[in-house]
Amino acid sequence: MDTVEIERKFLPKTLPELDKYPKKRIEQGYLCTDPVVRIRRSDDEYYMTYKGKGLMAREEYNLPLNEAAYDHMKPKCDGRFIEKDRYLIPLDNGLVVELDVFDGAWSGLILAEVEFESEEQANAFKPPEWLGEDVTGDRKYYNSNMI
Amino acid sequence: MDTVEIERKFLPKTLPELDKYPKKRIEQGYLCTDPVVRIRRSDDEYYMTYKGKGLMAREEYNLPLNEAAYDHMKPKCDGRFIEKDRYLIPLDNGLVVELDVFDGAWSGLILAEVEFESEEQANAFKPPEWLGEDVTGDRKYYNSNMI
Repeated sequence: MDTVEIERKFLPKTLPELDKYPKKRIEQGYLCTDPVVRIRRSDDEYYMTYKGKGLMAREEYNLPLNEAAYDHMKPKCDGRFIEKDRYLIPLDNGLVVELDVFDGAWSGLILAEVEFESEEQANAFKPPEWLGEDVTGDRKYYNSNMI
Repeated sequence: MDTVEIERKFLPKTLPELDKYPKKRIEQGYLCTDPVVRIRRSDDEYYMTYKGKGLMAREEYNLPLNEAAYDHMKPKCDGRFIEKDRYLIPLDNGLVVELDVFDGAWSGLILAEVEFESEEQANAFKPPEWLGEDVTGDRKYYNSNMI
């Protein structure tokens, strides 16, 4: 259940045709941002995520919640809830782009993430042109800083 | 970091001389009780615990917090905070009794827990006379029901 998350983040300049790709509705809020304690609804699944420290590799635990537990903790969250549609867009090399199209307070923002098996793989990744600017190290685009 | 907690609980009828044993100050509150999401201070250590389902064996994760994170989430907790002194009392067979002497809202309650390596060991345990009534299956003595 514990994973180390290795990812790179991008601000896409152009988008593929989104209707062709699977989509999930994601809503999430934060009980704490250091360390990150997040509750999330992903379609009809509910869970709590704990993330330890580090920029590219962060220790992460995903712990199951039920809908009642999620609803119970939702009012405890800080600041604004984050609401977005997440599209899963496969790349040629077996990797998948998670493309988040925000609405609500962050309407207009589109953010892409690619997760990797290793830091070597992350560093070797040649992003396609459309993924645009690499903002991996920019804390501004951590959802936990967007509440 | 993930453990399965196998324990038996007792209501001691008599107590050993507590001054002889190491003591920790424990304060804890609950963000959720199903599943259990608990924050705890144990002397100068702070952490969040998630406990899945089950009476004797419950999947448990202990995730580190810092003092600021603990203080941030303390007002989010439900009901009353639990405050207690925990004494660690070794038994002859290598097992240890965690003896909780509550104060605050639960002043007067004394509760003992013994943790085991396996359910076989838990079932085979012959408690010393002083440990008193076995209340392992009684949800009333789950701290998460005492808030």
